[in-house]
Amino acid sequence: MNKIEHIGIAVNNLQSAGDIYEKLLNSPVYKIEEILSEGVKTAFLKVGTNKIELLEASNTESPIAKFIAKKGEGIHHIAFEVDDIRAEMMRLKQEGFVLLNEEPKQGADNKLVCFVHPKSANGVLVELCQEVK
Amino acid sequence: MNKIEHIGIAVNNLQSAGDIYEKLLNSPVYKIEEILSEGVKTAFLKVGTNKIELLEASNTESPIAKFIAKKGEGIHHIAFEVDDIRAEMMRLKQEGFVLLNEEPKQGADNKLVCFVHPKSANGVLVELCQEVK
Repeated sequence: MNKIEHIGIAVNNLQSAGDIYEKLLNSPVYKIEEILSEGVKTAFLKVGTNKIELLEASNTESPIAKFIAKKGEGIHHIAFEVDDIRAEMMRLKQEGFVLLNEEPKQGADNKLVCFVHPKSANGVLVELCQEVK
Repeated sequence: MNKIEHIGIAVNNLQSAGDIYEKLLNSPVYKIEEILSEGVKTAFLKVGTNKIELLEASNTESPIAKFIAKKGEGIHHIAFEVDDIRAEMMRLKQEGFVLLNEEPKQGADNKLVCFVHPKSANGVLVELCQEVK
């Protein structure tokens, strides 16, 4: 794994959270993107070579809506950048980690992504992401 | 803010969590440190230029013990690297963020640290950290 690509933060309102994080990080929201298949709207901010991804549910069935209903706003996942997502998925399976998707799927920000079950990683939802060239 | 310095993860058992994260990140625990004043034992792993800090409570009054009792194991805080922590604390106060300590305090890994109240940042406990030269 190369680095922390981004931290995903579940928020109630993308606009107001974006304003807060622009002030916190002293860095602008540079991209807004909706991922229909996941039921989320996202806003990205840069902090050095890492990113913060704010996540708002776009419908009540969204995983983000369910997360916030259960736990409130807060950190939702850590995403690690990998060069070869299929190789990394295979390595983790062999190490005993439970993957939430067996095939890489299309995520935000032009990435192929795979999630690791939080039970495998001390309660942390881990995302692997590989940039699509 | 320069980058994500580390992500702090609250765990029940530092040894077993360290074993899991060594496999997950394919990177060794390179430092174990106890911070008596905070009631925590920490283990650090590198992922590129970022770090993961695993946190185990060293007593029942520890903030980590209280966090796990309330929420279970999981992500506890995000730490951002800053060059001048006092200047950054002043900037954030002027922007309306609530700081949990008015003066920088000594943290793990040879850092001066300050925490921002989660209510100021959509439920996220934010740490500023400046390396002590």
